[in-house]
Amino acid sequence: MSKYTQERRLLHGGDYNPDQWLHCPDILTEDIALMRDANTNTFSLGIFAWAKLEPQEGVFDFAWLDTVINRIEAIGGNVILATPSGARPAWMSAKYPEVLRVNERREKQLHGARHNHCFSSPIYREKVQIINRKLAERYGDHKALLMWHISNEYGGDCHCNLCQENFRTWLKSKYQTLERLNRAWWADFWSHTLTDWNQIESPSSIGETGVHGLNLDWRRFVTDQTIDFYLEECRPFRELTPDVEITTNFMGEVMEPHPFAGLDYAKFAEVVDIVSWDAYPNWHNDYETTAHLASKLAFLNDYFRALKDKPFLIMESTPSLVNWHPVNKAKRPGMHLLSSIATLAHGSDSVLYFQWRKSRGSSEKFHGAVVDHDQSRENRVFQEVSELGRILENIKEIKGANTRAKVALLYDTENKWALDDAQAYVRADKQYAETLHMHYKYFWDNNIAVDVITKDKPLDRYQLVIAPMLYMMEAAVIEKLRSYVAHGGHLVSTYLTGKVDENDLVYQGGWPVPLSELFGVNVLETDTLYPKDRNSIAAFGSEFAAMDYCEIIQTAGAMPLGTYQADFYQETPAVTEHAFGRGRSYFIAARTGPDFLNAFYSFVYREESRGVEAEAGVSVAVREKDGVAYIFVMNFTESAQSIHLPERMLDIATGNTLEQGTHELPVYGFHVLKRAKKEA
Amino acid sequence: MSKYTQERRLLHGGDYNPDQWLHCPDILTEDIALMRDANTNTFSLGIFAWAKLEPQEGVFDFAWLDTVINRIEAIGGNVILATPSGARPAWMSAKYPEVLRVNERREKQLHGARHNHCFSSPIYREKVQIINRKLAERYGDHKALLMWHISNEYGGDCHCNLCQENFRTWLKSKYQTLERLNRAWWADFWSHTLTDWNQIESPSSIGETGVHGLNLDWRRFVTDQTIDFYLEECRPFRELTPDVEITTNFMGEVMEPHPFAGLDYAKFAEVVDIVSWDAYPNWHNDYETTAHLASKLAFLNDYFRALKDKPFLIMESTPSLVNWHPVNKAKRPGMHLLSSIATLAHGSDSVLYFQWRKSRGSSEKFHGAVVDHDQSRENRVFQEVSELGRILENIKEIKGANTRAKVALLYDTENKWALDDAQAYVRADKQYAETLHMHYKYFWDNNIAVDVITKDKPLDRYQLVIAPMLYMMEAAVIEKLRSYVAHGGHLVSTYLTGKVDENDLVYQGGWPVPLSELFGVNVLETDTLYPKDRNSIAAFGSEFAAMDYCEIIQTAGAMPLGTYQADFYQETPAVTEHAFGRGRSYFIAARTGPDFLNAFYSFVYREESRGVEAEAGVSVAVREKDGVAYIFVMNFTESAQSIHLPERMLDIATGNTLEQGTHELPVYGFHVLKRAKKEA
Amino acid sequence: MSKYTQERRLLHGGDYNPDQWLHCPDILTEDIALMRDANTNTFSLGIFAWAKLEPQEGVFDFAWLDTVINRIEAIGGNVILATPSGARPAWMSAKYPEVLRVNERREKQLHGARHNHCFSSPIYREKVQIINRKLAERYGDHKALLMWHISNEYGGDCHCNLCQENFRTWLKSKYQTLERLNRAWWADFWSHTLTDWNQIESPSSIGETGVHGLNLDWRRFVTDQTIDFYLEECRPFRELTPDVEITTNFMGEVMEPHPFAGLDYAKFAEVVDIVSWDAYPNWHNDYETTAHLASKLAFLNDYFRALKDKPFLIMESTPSLVNWHPVNKAKRPGMHLLSSIATLAHGSDSVLYFQWRKSRGSSEKFHGAVVDHDQSRENRVFQEVSELGRILENIKEIKGANTRAKVALLYDTENKWALDDAQAYVRADKQYAETLHMHYKYFWDNNIAVDVITKDKPLDRYQLVIAPMLYMMEAAVIEKLRSYVAHGGHLVSTYLTGKVDENDLVYQGGWPVPLSELFGVNVLETDTLYPKDRNSIAAFGSEFAAMDYCEIIQTAGAMPLGTYQADFYQETPAVTEHAFGRGRSYFIAARTGPDFLNAFYSFVYREESRGVEAEAGVSVAVREKDGVAYIFVMNFTESAQSIHLPERMLDIATGNTLEQGTHELPVYGFHVLKRAKKEA
Repeated sequence: MSKYTQERRLLHGGDYNPDQWLHCPDILTEDIALMRDANTNTFSLGIFAWAKLEPQEGVFDFAWLDTVINRIEAIGGNVILATPSGARPAWMSAKYPEVLRVNERREKQLHGARHNHCFSSPIYREKVQIINRKLAERYGDHKALLMWHISNEYGGDCHCNLCQENFRTWLKSKYQTLERLNRAWWADFWSHTLTDWNQIESPSSIGETGVHGLNLDWRRFVTDQTIDFYLEECRPFRELTPDVEITTNFMGEVMEPHPFAGLDYAKFAEVVDIVSWDAYPNWHNDYETTAHLASKLAFLNDYFRALKDKPFLIMESTPSLVNWHPVNKAKRPGMHLLSSIATLAHGSDSVLYFQWRKSRGSSEKFHGAVVDHDQSRENRVFQEVSELGRILENIKEIKGANTRAKVALLYDTENKWALDDAQAYVRADKQYAETLHMHYKYFWDNNIAVDVITKDKPLDRYQLVIAPMLYMMEAAVIEKLRSYVAHGGHLVSTYLTGKVDENDLVYQGGWPVPLSELFGVNVLETDTLYPKDRNSIAAFGSEFAAMDYCEIIQTAGAMPLGTYQADFYQETPAVTEHAFGRGRSYFIAARTGPDFLNAFYSFVYREESRGVEAEAGVSVAVREKDGVAYIFVMNFTESAQSIHLPERMLDIATGNTLEQGTHELPVYGFHVLKRAKKEA
Repeated sequence: MSKYTQERRLLHGGDYNPDQWLHCPDILTEDIALMRDANTNTFSLGIFAWAKLEPQEGVFDFAWLDTVINRIEAIGGNVILATPSGARPAWMSAKYPEVLRVNERREKQLHGARHNHCFSSPIYREKVQIINRKLAERYGDHKALLMWHISNEYGGDCHCNLCQENFRTWLKSKYQTLERLNRAWWADFWSHTLTDWNQIESPSSIGETGVHGLNLDWRRFVTDQTIDFYLEECRPFRELTPDVEITTNFMGEVMEPHPFAGLDYAKFAEVVDIVSWDAYPNWHNDYETTAHLASKLAFLNDYFRALKDKPFLIMESTPSLVNWHPVNKAKRPGMHLLSSIATLAHGSDSVLYFQWRKSRGSSEKFHGAVVDHDQSRENRVFQEVSELGRILENIKEIKGANTRAKVALLYDTENKWALDDAQAYVRADKQYAETLHMHYKYFWDNNIAVDVITKDKPLDRYQLVIAPMLYMMEAAVIEKLRSYVAHGGHLVSTYLTGKVDENDLVYQGGWPVPLSELFGVNVLETDTLYPKDRNSIAAFGSEFAAMDYCEIIQTAGAMPLGTYQADFYQETPAVTEHAFGRGRSYFIAARTGPDFLNAFYSFVYREESRGVEAEAGVSVAVREKDGVAYIFVMNFTESAQSIHLPERMLDIATGNTLEQGTHELPVYGFHVLKRAKKEA
Repeated sequence: MSKYTQERRLLHGGDYNPDQWLHCPDILTEDIALMRDANTNTFSLGIFAWAKLEPQEGVFDFAWLDTVINRIEAIGGNVILATPSGARPAWMSAKYPEVLRVNERREKQLHGARHNHCFSSPIYREKVQIINRKLAERYGDHKALLMWHISNEYGGDCHCNLCQENFRTWLKSKYQTLERLNRAWWADFWSHTLTDWNQIESPSSIGETGVHGLNLDWRRFVTDQTIDFYLEECRPFRELTPDVEITTNFMGEVMEPHPFAGLDYAKFAEVVDIVSWDAYPNWHNDYETTAHLASKLAFLNDYFRALKDKPFLIMESTPSLVNWHPVNKAKRPGMHLLSSIATLAHGSDSVLYFQWRKSRGSSEKFHGAVVDHDQSRENRVFQEVSELGRILENIKEIKGANTRAKVALLYDTENKWALDDAQAYVRADKQYAETLHMHYKYFWDNNIAVDVITKDKPLDRYQLVIAPMLYMMEAAVIEKLRSYVAHGGHLVSTYLTGKVDENDLVYQGGWPVPLSELFGVNVLETDTLYPKDRNSIAAFGSEFAAMDYCEIIQTAGAMPLGTYQADFYQETPAVTEHAFGRGRSYFIAARTGPDFLNAFYSFVYREESRGVEAEAGVSVAVREKDGVAYIFVMNFTESAQSIHLPERMLDIATGNTLEQGTHELPVYGFHVLKRAKKEA
């Protein structure tokens, strides 16, 4: 059994950087005592510690790390040990300039910052290999070792000559011939026909930015190159510690909301043992409700959970505030508990922080931490972390419990790349992520579980699949959706769907026939509106605003559910329903507000209650394991709310039993209710 | 008689890129059938086709082009054959890096995009010469050849060493001595005195941007260098096909509105046989009325028409939408006809499109086209193009008819350069083009024809010349205006006039005496206001807001027509009228809104009716030929409007005769009425 | 006695650039007559004149300068003679490219603009040395020579290899060992540990920007390097003309308001004999009252005056308008007198202009000047300058009079660097300068004199010291403030105070104990609010809005003066008062509006009247000399205001005596009242 599987606790702790404090032995000692008092159990070590691990080329120093790991072990703690490749020592950049990136303007970068090494550099790969192997050898058998943490927040790209060569090799392998590449990139446009592989250059603002096939392939190559680098990093661990899980921390942009768009995590997730991500919602902002932001966070959690259809880890979060938001506001009392519970509710098995202790200097010295500069156990943050630790201990039985959603929302990073690149429609922002979240929000509001899936996932388990704005659809995806509906699935699609294939080449001959058959409509035109323009849709006995995009469609078998009320396509269908095989498909031809989506999904989909009734802003989410359901009830409003329990249930967070009936949930309050699952 | 003169039809068709589809012979065949069905007759070929015409250095392939041209000939069509210099093959950039531009930051560009060759490169000029000569030799006698289209949308500049050398040579030729150049550039300021020609560098954000004389000369050089390149491109055609007209497509910014400001078309127009331009109004936007945008389009058409005082060609327009506006909205039904008629009304003899067929990939795949990705003859766009083709056939007798305006508005590109550069007044935007359009709008609203002329044009034919914000005035222009008024002309000028000479050197000794005599005023100060500041002007029995600029003037013979109502120059003159020689001159000292201009021009200028009375938003424009007037009546409002005909007239667009009296013109409706001209 | 001390007049005149007009001998002659007629007496010569002084390398021409200086002497005028290093001749850049700067992106600049030489370049230093020595030798004994003006508006930095080497040398000298440098920069963060001095690079957007210690040291180095360059420039003058004062013109950003932030003038002021600065308020803008802007100007004047605790010079100002503001509006009639008097009131002994005469060309041709392009003596500007000259003659006895403030406001440039750099709180703008000005404004409104001091100044002379947002405090500053209060001083401090030491390293263990003792409070948390968030403070019997920052504090001896009214820290102290030693300290924990500050300072500090009572917007300022007080009364409102004189006083500006009682002061009116000082 693997190391992580053996661990019965929910992970609580986070990034610990003793390498910044080696000159303060008292602090290192005090940290261990603080860790115990904070009820934490797991620490990520070694991220960015390369300069301390290998202070000179070939000279290694693990003594300090030995001490720290042993001390953590002594208090019963775990270590997630990181490879240091996220930042390299200055001596390396000085001796081997090839490790420095070249940016897209072809400017060689200077040493500085982090996450900025060339992924192609043989020297860098060699140096990483050496140190990773030493880590594997030295700590692979350590009892405290829980997991490997490869590098940190992989991202970015390098445009040096080595990377250009690797890109060309990647393209040769993909296309075999220049003719095929020229066709895929539609290179005859503007005489861009390539006659030699060496004519290929990565996209650049001082060169080519408008060849969409090139742009897409570059991003795919960057994903593959990053994964290749990651896999090479993993080699010593796979060889020497086959029972120790490996992860690397992914990123999510909660404000947008979407996963980090620089890499395609659908591919990357395949090669990590457990998904982990870094979550930084900006609570208490002045432009949205707490509930709205909570639904964005849930959206991302449901994405990372669905990547491997199992619980994931929050590898980083803040116990208080961050230092890189436009406004860095502190969490209000109670919010740290609530927001931590919120990620657990959607599939996390950890609450890990960046960072354990605030540094004294440099760019992250004001980023929130368990241990503040005051080093106090009495301050609000330390107290709340400590309290959360107690709760996590109480509810640890949820570890491994999963969520079985009957609704899937399809998010495709490659589609985002293509849409963002599309020179058409509204140029500045197509609002792909915002639109997905708007659909998601209906289900969050109604406490219906959703998997936010990538296009490679099986669909047959779902009763409803929602795939808005799937502009780029390869034939296999179209076929998959057809097959899903044919076998009884329900599918919702929208405007800006099915325009181009996987090379961003437009489908010829009108909307693809397989789609037209599937939805029973033909898309005639996409009408793009100015920001102040409005049309409206009459549907479900009411009238709803339409904006931004109104596609003009023709039914070919489908039944109109709503029609446009204005402009030259007045009275034409705007929303349709179609029977296809044993299933049904729905097409929403225009962008609408949440009011329409509420009416629409109320019509399209019903699901039994999650077991607890609650008012708006109180969210109910369920995880299940071994026939037991864990019902998370969370108040994301700024006032106390009533909830109604259909039966007596135990709140494992507190150990209290709640009677059947109505209860008041205080501001930011929550329950983790345990209920034996009913017979299916 | 030249090829184009022999053609009796209005040109209808546009950019055709079979070079993107050589691997799809069916599409090439189908295109010809579609061309016939769309009632089109003229196609621009070969733009950006270099990679297909010369796939390897020195290896040429014209077979595909032969086929296309022959097929177009077979359906009675014309070809406007382009030189391919707008985009070069990748092999050329790879082998001869000198053909790549260096940008103003002195960064060598990579291969990519288009319109980015160095104008100085001997190799590029040689390669262009070779291929152009081959085109001339092969197709010069082809019956289908109507015209040569040199390159595409010339623009931009290159700062490589070759261009620096050419710039220095150009300056030596202009100034002969460094002393004269130093004087013209006022180079002793900040010790910028040049003591060697090699010290000269083109303007750069990493070097010099504040020497206005240098900036002006650089832009003049760029215009001359571009024309020089163009003339060299023309050489084989002038030599081998003296009877075939040559054009190159100019550009206009309809939203601003002004012609492309990167080149001085006043000079460029002298060396083309027929002016053509690419017009892309953003119809149905959410910040102005359709009529307002129509007047901007008319303003630009009247500029391009006046460049050679004869009909011009719309070389590019879209049948539906573009892909590069911030919001790419489709033309509503009827707008394609109306907007096409609108350009014809102001002097175009063509409706040519970019593009015939949408490409499948790359940056312009969503730009509107006659043939959409659905390849359908049934869709709205194809149908409207086809209908327009029928109308163009009906009204083809207008070809060659011109407009005789009695009012001229002076637009000077060099003045725009100088004003945009001026470090004074409101720094961000002096609003030169917007101001000219605001004056123009009065005449458009009142159906009075206007020539938008460049400063080299004769003035004696006009009853009224309007020259707002002519900040930069060389002595010859001042003298020309004086002579015009002295001989009976009426002249309107405004604030920010006559400040500097052709080198952007300020006139010494107060406002130039010749101007002071001409207008009977002296300009004492230019008061620049903050955006929220307002003064007002009492004039014509009413009071009007003044903003942005209020010049404080003193009459010296002129009669005040209006006075300021506030601030320390309260009660001083703001608008004046002056008798000079046999004419009259008017000076508007402050920026006003349209309300003032309406009152002012109602007072200053009257013209007999254009023959048809119409309500606001319905525009009436006239073209004349052989004693016949063609009266275009166009409804640019969103509802039906009444028009009144003083007599019975034939609408040649429909063949219907309209009786004397009142008629209703539907939304976006139009007539092309034919009337024998009255005796003068 | 030094040259400047012998001069009894207030300086009136400014930058004169005859070097631009050598080809126009008539203009040079006319200038002298105009100078007399404008009642001016002092001219800065030679700024940017290098190309005329040394037209070829090693070939010098002083003849023209001899003539100009002699002519100025002939009319009884003074010359402030500048070194020409602010702009070099083109031949120098061409022959010695090392003199050109490299920007922070490591791009070598081209020749152009000004103020852009490398401070390290040995060649540049050598060339400057040669020409400065020649100036010293030739003009050191000239009777008209009043002062040396070194270069012009020093600023900017260079990142070339020579500067990198000098930076490393500077760091070696400061830190001695890399270990100490690594500790100061907290370099172990992200493995930034340096193991070789050559690994150090100046901050760069293509390298490192987040190491705050590096950023701070770079700015300190740039200040030291600039001063070193300045001192080297001074050498010939110190050696040959020990009795002639030396200055260089500093800069201030009136709109912000703060002194130029590129250099630390606290250090620079030590090596100039007399402080001078260039003041360009944007009068009559559309977003603040005239009085508000006047208080910003006063704030800066009080800073420059306090730098050496003696009168300073306005080295540049405009008689009318500038050309580089976003909107360049002319001063209304009377404003030139008033704004000039306003700087005299706060310690200036001069009104010097940029520029004497408008140039004909290049970037500053529209910048205001005494002599306009019209060359007229009759225009408004010349008339007002001339009138001001008469007034300056009338009031010249104020020369040398100083202001004795009992209130000091601490402005620290290094603190601004650190705050602007801080990755925390509101990221975009911490509003340090705006906050200082808001505190200052209370005193300006109440006609109480304030010294805006740097942290090196003695405090014992003050009854009240205000040090808002002193984020960065070295131990010595903390100790100085403690000692000040302990000995009876009153101190006001605010949120964002005492966070980091001089290396931007955060104080460990909570708010520093010495501060906690001093203020009797502990700072627990800094709550950063979103722009629309509001808390409120109940204090002084009223309630005031709190915004942006609310620090949560705990009293430890202090008495609360106000408490928060909302959020989780409701009812906790927001404003406190504490007795410490013989003095008192006040802590304002939240950002407030002016309403709170009015109430607070009314409570904290009272001062006897300045001798004249006036309404809001009328400012009273006092300078004193030899037992005489000069009371400046200035109306900064847009209407006439009443003032009340407690006794009969002489207005030396007019020679009129004003009786005791109430008088009306017209719009923009002023008095300079003389009163024998009462016995202390």
